[in-house]
Amino acid sequence: MAGSTYGTLFKITTWGESHGAAVGVVIDGCPAGLPLSEEDIQLFLDRRKPGQSRFTTARQEADRAEILSGVFEGKTTGTPISIIVRNQDQHSKDYGKIKDCYRPGHADYTFDAKYGFRDYRGGGRSSGRETIGRVAAGAAAAKLLKQLGITFTTYTRSIGAITVPEDQLDFSCITENKLYMPNNSYADKASLYLEECMKKKDSSGGIVECRITGVPSGIGEPVFDKLDAALAKGMMSIGAVKGVEIGDGFLAAAALGSSNNDAFCCEDGRIRKKTNHSGGTLGGISDGSPLLIRAAIKPTPSISRKQETVTTDGKNTSISITGRHDPVIVPRAVVVVEAMAALTLADLLMQNMSSKLDSLTQFYL
Amino acid sequence: MAGSTYGTLFKITTWGESHGAAVGVVIDGCPAGLPLSEEDIQLFLDRRKPGQSRFTTARQEADRAEILSGVFEGKTTGTPISIIVRNQDQHSKDYGKIKDCYRPGHADYTFDAKYGFRDYRGGGRSSGRETIGRVAAGAAAAKLLKQLGITFTTYTRSIGAITVPEDQLDFSCITENKLYMPNNSYADKASLYLEECMKKKDSSGGIVECRITGVPSGIGEPVFDKLDAALAKGMMSIGAVKGVEIGDGFLAAAALGSSNNDAFCCEDGRIRKKTNHSGGTLGGISDGSPLLIRAAIKPTPSISRKQETVTTDGKNTSISITGRHDPVIVPRAVVVVEAMAALTLADLLMQNMSSKLDSLTQFYL
Amino acid sequence: MAGSTYGTLFKITTWGESHGAAVGVVIDGCPAGLPLSEEDIQLFLDRRKPGQSRFTTARQEADRAEILSGVFEGKTTGTPISIIVRNQDQHSKDYGKIKDCYRPGHADYTFDAKYGFRDYRGGGRSSGRETIGRVAAGAAAAKLLKQLGITFTTYTRSIGAITVPEDQLDFSCITENKLYMPNNSYADKASLYLEECMKKKDSSGGIVECRITGVPSGIGEPVFDKLDAALAKGMMSIGAVKGVEIGDGFLAAAALGSSNNDAFCCEDGRIRKKTNHSGGTLGGISDGSPLLIRAAIKPTPSISRKQETVTTDGKNTSISITGRHDPVIVPRAVVVVEAMAALTLADLLMQNMSSKLDSLTQFYL
Amino acid sequence: MAGSTYGTLFKITTWGESHGAAVGVVIDGCPAGLPLSEEDIQLFLDRRKPGQSRFTTARQEADRAEILSGVFEGKTTGTPISIIVRNQDQHSKDYGKIKDCYRPGHADYTFDAKYGFRDYRGGGRSSGRETIGRVAAGAAAAKLLKQLGITFTTYTRSIGAITVPEDQLDFSCITENKLYMPNNSYADKASLYLEECMKKKDSSGGIVECRITGVPSGIGEPVFDKLDAALAKGMMSIGAVKGVEIGDGFLAAAALGSSNNDAFCCEDGRIRKKTNHSGGTLGGISDGSPLLIRAAIKPTPSISRKQETVTTDGKNTSISITGRHDPVIVPRAVVVVEAMAALTLADLLMQNMSSKLDSLTQFYL
Repeated sequence: MAGSTYGTLFKITTWGESHGAAVGVVIDGCPAGLPLSEEDIQLFLDRRKPGQSRFTTARQEADRAEILSGVFEGKTTGTPISIIVRNQDQHSKDYGKIKDCYRPGHADYTFDAKYGFRDYRGGGRSSGRETIGRVAAGAAAAKLLKQLGITFTTYTRSIGAITVPEDQLDFSCITENKLYMPNNSYADKASLYLEECMKKKDSSGGIVECRITGVPSGIGEPVFDKLDAALAKGMMSIGAVKGVEIGDGFLAAAALGSSNNDAFCCEDGRIRKKTNHSGGTLGGISDGSPLLIRAAIKPTPSISRKQETVTTDGKNTSISITGRHDPVIVPRAVVVVEAMAALTLADLLMQNMSSKLDSLTQFYL
Repeated sequence: MAGSTYGTLFKITTWGESHGAAVGVVIDGCPAGLPLSEEDIQLFLDRRKPGQSRFTTARQEADRAEILSGVFEGKTTGTPISIIVRNQDQHSKDYGKIKDCYRPGHADYTFDAKYGFRDYRGGGRSSGRETIGRVAAGAAAAKLLKQLGITFTTYTRSIGAITVPEDQLDFSCITENKLYMPNNSYADKASLYLEECMKKKDSSGGIVECRITGVPSGIGEPVFDKLDAALAKGMMSIGAVKGVEIGDGFLAAAALGSSNNDAFCCEDGRIRKKTNHSGGTLGGISDGSPLLIRAAIKPTPSISRKQETVTTDGKNTSISITGRHDPVIVPRAVVVVEAMAALTLADLLMQNMSSKLDSLTQFYL
Repeated sequence: MAGSTYGTLFKITTWGESHGAAVGVVIDGCPAGLPLSEEDIQLFLDRRKPGQSRFTTARQEADRAEILSGVFEGKTTGTPISIIVRNQDQHSKDYGKIKDCYRPGHADYTFDAKYGFRDYRGGGRSSGRETIGRVAAGAAAAKLLKQLGITFTTYTRSIGAITVPEDQLDFSCITENKLYMPNNSYADKASLYLEECMKKKDSSGGIVECRITGVPSGIGEPVFDKLDAALAKGMMSIGAVKGVEIGDGFLAAAALGSSNNDAFCCEDGRIRKKTNHSGGTLGGISDGSPLLIRAAIKPTPSISRKQETVTTDGKNTSISITGRHDPVIVPRAVVVVEAMAALTLADLLMQNMSSKLDSLTQFYL
Repeated sequence: MAGSTYGTLFKITTWGESHGAAVGVVIDGCPAGLPLSEEDIQLFLDRRKPGQSRFTTARQEADRAEILSGVFEGKTTGTPISIIVRNQDQHSKDYGKIKDCYRPGHADYTFDAKYGFRDYRGGGRSSGRETIGRVAAGAAAAKLLKQLGITFTTYTRSIGAITVPEDQLDFSCITENKLYMPNNSYADKASLYLEECMKKKDSSGGIVECRITGVPSGIGEPVFDKLDAALAKGMMSIGAVKGVEIGDGFLAAAALGSSNNDAFCCEDGRIRKKTNHSGGTLGGISDGSPLLIRAAIKPTPSISRKQETVTTDGKNTSISITGRHDPVIVPRAVVVVEAMAALTLADLLMQNMSSKLDSLTQFYL
């Protein structure tokens, strides 16, 4: 059992559970010479922090990132970057039914099945707090990619059934609404829907979309380490994600070859595609078009409605999850999706550097 | 660049391109003592072979698997199992425009971008023939899983927009029609649709679905090596796959928490779930319910319609792909999906064996 | 670049440099249910701490281990165990020549060559403080192995040319002398030798030996992941190690086959070897005899004698390393060798659990 | 269990046992554009072939390498290179006592202990034939390194106790004698010694030494993936190797710091070391000096003398190994050592390319 490390050359290892002393990440393999500060990390962490709107919990999570190693005089040294975020509030309390029964939609049961027991004070490693390490590391990866001209636009595409249509995407307003939707009027509709959910003691899912521009052609390793395969793993490794699409995704399954194929053309001496149904990859290798990724996020499983379940010793019972819980985590997942995309891409960009003999001779001779 | 190895403990490495001498796979880490024969492998290979219906090419690909190592007296020895399939027909011919221009929807352009040149005689490593190695290895993984009571039901859920509805799935007829659909009447509709595609010199995509029963609880490693993350990578690493879902997938994004959560109950002293929206995983760890995976397959990019494209030296041109090409590869992808699921699951089952101290003491003391 | 992770199933990632805020390690994959406390870690850390004898520096390094995650109610949970040790004394000071020139025998030059710059305040990642992470993780691995009946005897076999002869090894007195030598009279001789070194402003190397009993047969993976290959990597990854031997090591090169082969015999129904020239492995797999490993440690490169060197901008100069430095690090390396052996063995013990189909069926059925 | 894959970016997977149909290797991650032919491979294989002198068996092993994939129009394509060598002579015969008892010094016992049974027709995966895959892959790695100006001088330093002294090394005559010794007169002495061994039905070990020049500074990853740690693993993974040294190795343990440290100096504007006790690495990273590696090889375990052993069902017995066996394998191991060094170095050279942000910006911008 070892599942907390991600990446080959740009490699991260996260640790920490919701009710432990701290959570954190070690980034190993970040190239030397990258300017990196705690503020860079904090900007990303702040995007996932709760309490920003009435649809996210008001828990006081300061989540201050501290860099403990790997940065000297403002630049990365090439050695591991250890980032820690202390948990507040992890003092003992009454865990009530959480300790003795399995919350539907949570990993309580499966952790017990796997490990024989679990840290019953919260979600443990399957808590949303686990994403802090990913996001902190993703901030470093994104900063690295920015130096290479690669930029991210990530947003909430849908809340429940409310989806911003393709022709109404307005990226300029993503940060103007609390839901990170690229359309304020759809954000308003979604807000109304979420209020309704809250009234019904229920919760909602949604879809996060990530567009990455400036990705050079040639990134991704054929066969098993395709760029899209790596992205799919990264996305699906986020706790609540149940589906991943690249480009047209499931729509491609219903399309015709003639409409799904992207024609090539040559403009100003540069080869490009006229459309981007493929979402920026062909044969698992980036084709120079923007990468387009979509992740389906299930509704928050913690709801205050009464639900049927069982006790850890196998008796039927019911549970109403108390405490403050987000009716939707989608807006907070936006930065997590971006972080995973950045980590995946940084790693494969580095792997690609030794694809050609010419690159080696230029580097070493 | 090294992307042809998959898995950690049950590890495979595939090799070979469409127009080389052979294709094959090395399976390393298959437990010793598993009865395995060339017939076991052949059964799987035959499911992906072309020429079985009028919607798959009539090319004569014998695809006989030869086991070169790792099996002694009918059983695996624990050492690498090398399986080879000779390519027929790879003799020189006129590659025509394929050599000098980039086929839309294919990886010709991206391979050139990555490696500086490519084997222009066909798809090379991005050819459908690459899947032979996966499928051969998947046959071994599936045989291993069968010993543990784990069984697969994999089929074509959709061809184009023709989808077998949930309540009309009839698994008994999957092998009764050439499209591997779990409903003969839908298979007929799909056949008509495909004939239309062929007439229009066009092609179709579709959706493959895989249900796995008998999976014990506790499989999958938390955080990055979640069972569903590993499955997503496996699926998306298949050439034509553009989307992956676990359980309700994208539908979950539109659902309410109260309907998406699976209630637990206890029956005959065994804890189980009343529904299976989660598709058999919670927190990335198997929950004892059937695993449910869906892969969206894009339309075959090789179509005989005229398409706009560019030459390798950057001139606008057009191309009509000649030769025999499947108007749909979905039925042939069914066994590929099953193979990737089996390989992923076998690896994580093996990794899980050391999750608890108790397991180590029982094994070694 | 990513070299700070070790192991496959029992996997550790260390971080931190000598003059940063802290050093630490994340252990991922430690089986759940292992009793583990900060005291367990501290016992190991104390064995590497300086200031224990006059041959080790009197620097005040408190080196208190703090466990931040992965342990709940006194037991490991199966999730990552994050251990941190705050650095004392890392406040700014005059780094003098260290900043501007390359110390002979140190990694100053190679870090600059690789990364373009380095943390010039000390050895950075190549400092001896890097071993704190390994040792802390090794404490956990050793505790795990102890549950399986595997025990370690590790000691200083040589200081300079003073070697305890095979027939005078007395393991009962290892902790009776400050050099961890298994013979007090040889320890006295070595002490005199070291005093001489100190007077001459010079330093000494030595040999650490590690014997591991209770290792079951069958551990180690054939070909590249042989038990002895993995141990060799683990040993040589320790900063000052320049040679590794298993069993008779280099002596075997001069021996005859008839004397080097270990005869098998059967006693009380158990197969064993009459001798152990092989050091406990055959074909890279443990044979049930004690594992015997030897690591050659070079003399401490920091000496106060004047040495010729160059400045970072390529001018010839000379340097005398000031400050307190151990004339020998061998006694402090004893626990580092033991830690690396424990980590290596724990990982391969876990990997071995899925070697046979029978093991899988017993585990899952 | 999966131990047949070596390397991260330049990755090889070997397969095949002594009495199976074939042995081979898959090289994944070899940069595209490297001229590579079957002759390149054959040159290396011929160096390990038996029957070249009276001290190596006269078995007819043609060992013709066939490249099945990954090379197109004489150049590597960047995709997996599959190389196969058919076994001759693997037809059924009387395996006599080998089947029913454990040969001392061989891995018969440990394979049974690990896997429950073994291919008793020979050494299986622990046979010397396993090295064919490594050597074939090493030929490709060495060819790659040659393009970067890196060259190997590998030879027999010792046979038994007969060691060519440092000041009598004459690399010009390595291929003039059948033992690959860099001194013909020592080769003569060694030959006499080996004849004596043969008369006594005994065998001899020896030491192989490898010098690598042209290695740029900066290769090797700090902490666990140090260049010397990786080399140590590579060397110790060769079946008969029991010890590994880098630079002065075990002699360093007895040296003083003042004599073991290599002084830096500047010549013609280039920083270099005046001596090379370190063997070309500092802190696990190449320092621009030649790499110097030594591997201790145990005596061939197959001797025709009567040896005590046990049957597989635990009865004491004795065995005399019949058939043609080399009284020494050291000369044949020379190319295996070179191959492992080349594979290790190629991989770390590729990993090093992403160490600095500047390298990424130069590559991608």
